[in-house]
Amino acid sequence: MGRIAVTDGMDDQAIMTLENAGHEVASNHYSIDELLDGVLAEFDAVVVRSATKLSADVIESSSSDGSKLGFIGRAGVGVDNIDISAATQNGIIVCNTPGASTRSVVEMTIGHFIASARNIARADRSLREGIWEKKALKGTEIAGKSLGLIGLGRIARGVADAAASLGMDVHAYDPYVQSSPDWINMHDDVDDVFRSCTHISVHCNLSDETRHLVNTTRIGMMPGVGNDGTECGNHIVSCARGGIVDESDAAMALENGQLRTLALDVFETEPLGDSPLLSMDGFHGSPHIAASTLEAQGRIGTEMVSLLMEYFETGRPSTSLN
Amino acid sequence: MGRIAVTDGMDDQAIMTLENAGHEVASNHYSIDELLDGVLAEFDAVVVRSATKLSADVIESSSSDGSKLGFIGRAGVGVDNIDISAATQNGIIVCNTPGASTRSVVEMTIGHFIASARNIARADRSLREGIWEKKALKGTEIAGKSLGLIGLGRIARGVADAAASLGMDVHAYDPYVQSSPDWINMHDDVDDVFRSCTHISVHCNLSDETRHLVNTTRIGMMPGVGNDGTECGNHIVSCARGGIVDESDAAMALENGQLRTLALDVFETEPLGDSPLLSMDGFHGSPHIAASTLEAQGRIGTEMVSLLMEYFETGRPSTSLN
Repeated sequence: MGRIAVTDGMDDQAIMTLENAGHEVASNHYSIDELLDGVLAEFDAVVVRSATKLSADVIESSSSDGSKLGFIGRAGVGVDNIDISAATQNGIIVCNTPGASTRSVVEMTIGHFIASARNIARADRSLREGIWEKKALKGTEIAGKSLGLIGLGRIARGVADAAASLGMDVHAYDPYVQSSPDWINMHDDVDDVFRSCTHISVHCNLSDETRHLVNTTRIGMMPGVGNDGTECGNHIVSCARGGIVDESDAAMALENGQLRTLALDVFETEPLGDSPLLSMDGFHGSPHIAASTLEAQGRIGTEMVSLLMEYFETGRPSTSLN
Repeated sequence: MGRIAVTDGMDDQAIMTLENAGHEVASNHYSIDELLDGVLAEFDAVVVRSATKLSADVIESSSSDGSKLGFIGRAGVGVDNIDISAATQNGIIVCNTPGASTRSVVEMTIGHFIASARNIARADRSLREGIWEKKALKGTEIAGKSLGLIGLGRIARGVADAAASLGMDVHAYDPYVQSSPDWINMHDDVDDVFRSCTHISVHCNLSDETRHLVNTTRIGMMPGVGNDGTECGNHIVSCARGGIVDESDAAMALENGQLRTLALDVFETEPLGDSPLLSMDGFHGSPHIAASTLEAQGRIGTEMVSLLMEYFETGRPSTSLN
């Protein structure tokens, strides 16, 4: 039986299952000072989401003599808040739940594309202000347009399927994938995706290679006219990670019309403070909620429980990141 | 060559095509007094959208001795603003463009379902107010839920296809359709659709039979729990006609939680004035823009030009409503 720290919350059902199995679960968010003081060394396992940052320093502090910490679980996908090599050096296994939120992010991406092309947020806002803006809110369809996916992992493939069923042509760039469905137009040069598509959706990790990948030059390559001849303008959605879209370049493109809409669920700085985007009609924002659904939370909890059970039974879950 | 009045606007390209073919096009919105004074009697044809009301009185006034009016074109689908039997009695042909906006309304319906279940409008609104509401905005997926269609015409069938491809089960009620795809669960009693579905989309005409069809009793039948066991609450979208959803009943259901979200593109009174809905978080509104896209407008124009050309050449378009 183990002691498990849950620092950023987890599904109630999952916590109950662990407790019923005899584990001790402490649901507690720790400050960075507490983490650096080695508070996690008292636990066998820690489960985080994105709020708790497990830097090399924190991992070192959690791995002093007498430390029991052997398992870091990320309830979710992105592990940019965890220094995996520091964990490996200290003999700590790192696991995430990569598939659990796919469907939620796919739906959010499609929702953002339709909502922004059809002015759904602006329509609701002006209606609440007592304005009947019918004439000003003409939109465009997503059917008959080309969608470019930056990255072709699990979520992007889900978006590709949904977009194709809604009548879009799908293009993609991902130098790390070996194979892809033959109906997706793969490009070796990311610029070609921007040249081919009025709609771009970002699905890669944030890295030195992808930081500010969406910038003035590439937005400038987007055609603004759909395959069907419609002057639909250019549209970008990112539910991936902040920093891949250069927000200041994108704001400029919204301002000068090269970009008609920009929907961001993720930002270079979160929480988003003051931003020129917030006063622009073509901007649509959400506070990093693409994976925030009851369903994803439930699936994450179930997967994390399995990983923890395996860890406590065998010392090694069947899947891990290190 | 004919004289054509376009009273609520039409695609520029369509007007140009008609003028190039030698017709005279007068783009002019007339007041009800001008219409009752018989201003349309000077034209061979009139093209309206929804703003111009061609009541029996207006049609009588347009059909006095010496009147030339023989064709009423509705640039769009709904003809509740045209008294078709008065037109028939006065020998006036009425045509609409039923297929032209289908795709736009289908996308708007799907967009409203995702946007409301995922709080996209509220997220954007609070972000603009400087609030990072991440914790409060947990949503639910549409996949794994049952969608009930009230009416199974062209648009509803498009919504059914899109929803099924996004992982929803589809139910429908339509006493006027003879056949339907076998993967749609048809019900003989509209109440059974409400009992079976957490998500309801309205796609029928407004008539005595359908007025306030969506009311407290039927909303009360909705299960609130998806097929997948998720407590997703109940969600209703209408991009059909105002008056089918009883707005005061729906506001009450939002208030007491029986309805989690309500997205309306159409209202009992348009433009929407003061309404209790406007202060509710679960409400999402748009000002009758489900068909307002460049693509639909282009297709409507093209279809209307064909109908007018046929009328002037043969005296009778191949499709008409009377």
